[in-house]
Amino acid sequence: MKGETLKSYQTFDRVKLLTRHLQNHNATPCVYDFDTKSLRKLLDGASVDDIDYIFNLMIQSNLFCPRERDGKVFIAPDFNQSMEQQREMTMRRIDYLREQGVFDELFSKGHLWGFVLSEALGVYDHSLSIKVSVHFFLWGGAIRFMGTKRHHDKWFKPTETYQVKGCFAMTELGHGSNVRGIETMTRYDASTGEFIINTPCESAQKYWIGGAANDATHTVVFSQLEINGVNQGVHAFIAQIRDENGNKHPNIRIADCGHKIGLNGVDNGRIWFDNLRIPRENLLNSVADVSPDGQYQSAIKDPDQRFAAFLAPLTSGRVMIAGSSMYSTKIGLAIAIRYSLSRHAFSIRPNEPEVLLLDYPTHQRRLLPLLAKTYALSFASNYLKMIYIKRTPESMKSVHLASSALKAVLTWHCMRTLQECREACGVQGLQTENHVGHLKKEYDVQLTFEGDNNVLMQQVSKVLLAEFLAAKKRNKPIKGLGLEHLNKPVPIIPSHLTTSILRTTQFQTDIFCLRERDLLHRFATEVSQHLAQGESKEHIFTVTYQIAEDLGRAFSDRLILQTYLDVEATIPEGPLKGILGLMRSMYTTIVLEEDASFLRYSYLSTDNAAVVRKEVLKLCSELRPHALSLVSSFGIPDAFLAPIAFNWVDANAWSSV
Amino acid sequence: MKGETLKSYQTFDRVKLLTRHLQNHNATPCVYDFDTKSLRKLLDGASVDDIDYIFNLMIQSNLFCPRERDGKVFIAPDFNQSMEQQREMTMRRIDYLREQGVFDELFSKGHLWGFVLSEALGVYDHSLSIKVSVHFFLWGGAIRFMGTKRHHDKWFKPTETYQVKGCFAMTELGHGSNVRGIETMTRYDASTGEFIINTPCESAQKYWIGGAANDATHTVVFSQLEINGVNQGVHAFIAQIRDENGNKHPNIRIADCGHKIGLNGVDNGRIWFDNLRIPRENLLNSVADVSPDGQYQSAIKDPDQRFAAFLAPLTSGRVMIAGSSMYSTKIGLAIAIRYSLSRHAFSIRPNEPEVLLLDYPTHQRRLLPLLAKTYALSFASNYLKMIYIKRTPESMKSVHLASSALKAVLTWHCMRTLQECREACGVQGLQTENHVGHLKKEYDVQLTFEGDNNVLMQQVSKVLLAEFLAAKKRNKPIKGLGLEHLNKPVPIIPSHLTTSILRTTQFQTDIFCLRERDLLHRFATEVSQHLAQGESKEHIFTVTYQIAEDLGRAFSDRLILQTYLDVEATIPEGPLKGILGLMRSMYTTIVLEEDASFLRYSYLSTDNAAVVRKEVLKLCSELRPHALSLVSSFGIPDAFLAPIAFNWVDANAWSSV
Repeated sequence: MKGETLKSYQTFDRVKLLTRHLQNHNATPCVYDFDTKSLRKLLDGASVDDIDYIFNLMIQSNLFCPRERDGKVFIAPDFNQSMEQQREMTMRRIDYLREQGVFDELFSKGHLWGFVLSEALGVYDHSLSIKVSVHFFLWGGAIRFMGTKRHHDKWFKPTETYQVKGCFAMTELGHGSNVRGIETMTRYDASTGEFIINTPCESAQKYWIGGAANDATHTVVFSQLEINGVNQGVHAFIAQIRDENGNKHPNIRIADCGHKIGLNGVDNGRIWFDNLRIPRENLLNSVADVSPDGQYQSAIKDPDQRFAAFLAPLTSGRVMIAGSSMYSTKIGLAIAIRYSLSRHAFSIRPNEPEVLLLDYPTHQRRLLPLLAKTYALSFASNYLKMIYIKRTPESMKSVHLASSALKAVLTWHCMRTLQECREACGVQGLQTENHVGHLKKEYDVQLTFEGDNNVLMQQVSKVLLAEFLAAKKRNKPIKGLGLEHLNKPVPIIPSHLTTSILRTTQFQTDIFCLRERDLLHRFATEVSQHLAQGESKEHIFTVTYQIAEDLGRAFSDRLILQTYLDVEATIPEGPLKGILGLMRSMYTTIVLEEDASFLRYSYLSTDNAAVVRKEVLKLCSELRPHALSLVSSFGIPDAFLAPIAFNWVDANAWSSV
Repeated sequence: MKGETLKSYQTFDRVKLLTRHLQNHNATPCVYDFDTKSLRKLLDGASVDDIDYIFNLMIQSNLFCPRERDGKVFIAPDFNQSMEQQREMTMRRIDYLREQGVFDELFSKGHLWGFVLSEALGVYDHSLSIKVSVHFFLWGGAIRFMGTKRHHDKWFKPTETYQVKGCFAMTELGHGSNVRGIETMTRYDASTGEFIINTPCESAQKYWIGGAANDATHTVVFSQLEINGVNQGVHAFIAQIRDENGNKHPNIRIADCGHKIGLNGVDNGRIWFDNLRIPRENLLNSVADVSPDGQYQSAIKDPDQRFAAFLAPLTSGRVMIAGSSMYSTKIGLAIAIRYSLSRHAFSIRPNEPEVLLLDYPTHQRRLLPLLAKTYALSFASNYLKMIYIKRTPESMKSVHLASSALKAVLTWHCMRTLQECREACGVQGLQTENHVGHLKKEYDVQLTFEGDNNVLMQQVSKVLLAEFLAAKKRNKPIKGLGLEHLNKPVPIIPSHLTTSILRTTQFQTDIFCLRERDLLHRFATEVSQHLAQGESKEHIFTVTYQIAEDLGRAFSDRLILQTYLDVEATIPEGPLKGILGLMRSMYTTIVLEEDASFLRYSYLSTDNAAVVRKEVLKLCSELRPHALSLVSSFGIPDAFLAPIAFNWVDANAWSSV
């Protein structure tokens, strides 16, 4: 909180505020004087310096459109520019970052660097982050993980220098989530040693391909591979689509996807292949290959297993989306909470001074649970990055499960938080310069990208069910996916909850485990009842979505709580541990209040639900004095926030026009 | 459904579909072969022809940017234009409508015409609708309702011809919702017979004033009025801010609000008044006046009552917002449901054809309850317009209450529906040409405009409580605001719900009334407990928001159900009544499932809640065959929808590039 200039903060008197807010509650609140830098280190971990390095590079360049308001400098893209201009600016910013050496040796660096890039650039502009991510982590990632040494040797260097600009042509007009159903067709011509890629019908056109409309010179193409009349399923190939001067290859047609509700700095396009010929070596052959004489070769004989192995590397996309969603969320909260600490509205009694927004219990209820949740979800995102980086063939099931669950929960939380922040800022939230509202449209894509969130939740439950049934069949304790708690006795929830019980890790863990366990049993029962009626498994999973989605959330919440407790365990007793405990209680309590499944399945009695509800009020008033420190701990430089986050009256003064 | 060209609809076989979808349910579903035109007449009532007239005017002009896709013409603004270009196009479209006579004699026409204009223009573009509404219904409305004959005679005509372009300067940088706290100051100079309007500080600048940045020549200014050293509270004045050539008045400064997340066709601006002098006659004097010699005169002596009477006309804003929200919702649903009837995804079993999106129970659950709710809320919006038009001083309390409740509930529903529709369309929902996602950012303002929705809900509950306590004090049956059901015995909810019980109007009415009644009692109890502890009323209302918001929703839902039943009562037995009954059951059942208060306060046992949940599945499958007819009944011409609502494969074909 050093250098804080906002006038009203000068009158910020913690003791007075606490007295006022808590006068009607019996809680004995603690005010934790924790160090914001230490808390930030928990959030950004080993990446703090790298993130700050990227932040500073952007702040230093005029390409990032700095503008002064009331003595403070803010940077943000000019969203009044046309799509064409925004695209051009995105490319120019990438050129600048490249010149600064940001991408040097990128493929030799650890994975964490990739997450830093995606997240830190996204704090400035989602288009910039996506455009870089498509090039390095979709195009480059496909070469890295789906290709082999021959591809690495040839393509890494020119990708790092942007001599080659890559895109990633998987999605088609007719097939998005269903990769297996894509219709692009590739055959092999042994006489020339070439593959021939073709778009057989309109629904097979490659669709929404970031980078394709303007800039990309190369693409990874996902296509069915037919060898000697047999369809071997979906494979990935490298194809050049433009020459170094930007001229399209004669066997390629490209169209623009046009204007979008956000991400207009990315040139999404559509591609048709007209029997494009590419060298045999361009097949990304980590899982399967074709010999010069046209024989299909793969160590994995089962097509389902082969397809799974082939797609496994794409998990990184969900990990990246989950991570970046937390940064968008933090920007929204930092702005809305700072505004609520300087904006007054109405007097409680005539002739009294007007009340700060965040001193209204309603306003606390809108923002502070989301703040606590953001911490919980950020820790979960860090956990996800770590298990992804350390993944082994054995851990891939866990990684896949966690990435599906957390991608859904974190992006939902992001959109909900941005919407709440926008409304909490009133009309100011609608001005582009204030970001809060604007971020929503930039971010919206993530809810359905890399899997619709609802579908992901159902997938999570299917995996859990399979694991549960397998353990039952083996007649052994269940192991893995965090389900070991099912081997223990059923947790007992106290019949009369109190504040002190609600804040114990024991109770919090118990009720989250109880919910997951019970829902898994119920899901298993429901599925088996349908099976007994002779219905097909496939049909059953389409009609049991209600409980499957409940279970998906239960799994996610239990996982998030677990990772939170793991973080807390590393912190010595003190103010930091104190504030973390308070936020954990807020996180669990708000889940108990908001997810109707606790009442629906009687994990909470109505009496206990009433206690939970009162506890939310209490927790809000206890978190209130920490609100500013908690958003400061996000570590986002002021330049990436907005005028309303600071002295918005002076920023709007005539002298600033 | 005449002229329907979408290929997949040709294979639309109701009987087959029903058989497939219902094979696992015991319901005996009816397929209602209702007339879509009759249903539309229920939605648009007496305004059908007027709405179609406006639609056709827009379709006929090149100013509305028609573009052909696969033989169909769509019209929509070019959102790739800069803010400046969008503003210019909005004004040119208004000029065209004026030339066509749309605004002739507008102030002599009934109120319904105003709603038609706002709603029908909004189907094309929210900016166009808002820009017209600010001029006629904020500027013009203030003159009409806050002014008297001298103002009507002088300003109606030039407003209708756009010789005068009006705006409405109420909101200030420092005060939005809290009109009473605005800081602009006006004094009277008896020596010249003029008022002098001044902006005393930066927070008093008029803010977010639609039309001010570029076009407006005149404004209604809201200001404190100080007469002989006494502040008489907020009054409204007419002030000229630009001459006919667009030159600003020397005592006015104006700045632009800049780029926004939506509504960039409206030129929102900020105004500072530097002791601007205006004639005495420019005070809008329906409630109070100042004599030439500077005496303040008003028939209403109590300042609170005077302020209430003064602001009463602004209720029309909420009525208009509620109405227009239903049209935005309909566009989103029409597009998403039509897309879900032609887009396939995944096969249930290998080698089977892929399944239509709307044949997935999850997809039905996402869209069909929102569809039924949209009908229920549209009927409520029509009711609101009617009671507003027929308002009397006695009915104003009801009108105010209904407008607050329905503005909140309808705009929340609109945003939620648009978000769900965007996600249901996947990436297609992000393309501006497909509207669904784009509408969200245009519409977002309504959630906080004319009162933040959460605050409105609390206000509703405060009014209900006051009415309840007054009746108790009088020791007489409660009368008015629809609360008469409180005089009857407490409704008994059956201990074992069944499909047939859930679908009776008796049960539906009972449980909605039970909830409203019980929450009102609980709210009264909670408030009185706080009072007994010596807390101030003002403080109490800030901490009882949880139950107040529950009660606000309970009131709204009961009101909506009542208006629905009133509409149904006018329809003879037959298919139309059948489909209306089915949608009513969907509306009530989804409220029972989604609002946790039914479980929280035990209006539903957990067993009954489980029955409700299963019923949602059933109702979805029963509504499924009607989905296309139900969105066709909205009566929105194809040109206002989007390529994905029709043959999106052909619309995306290379030949359409």
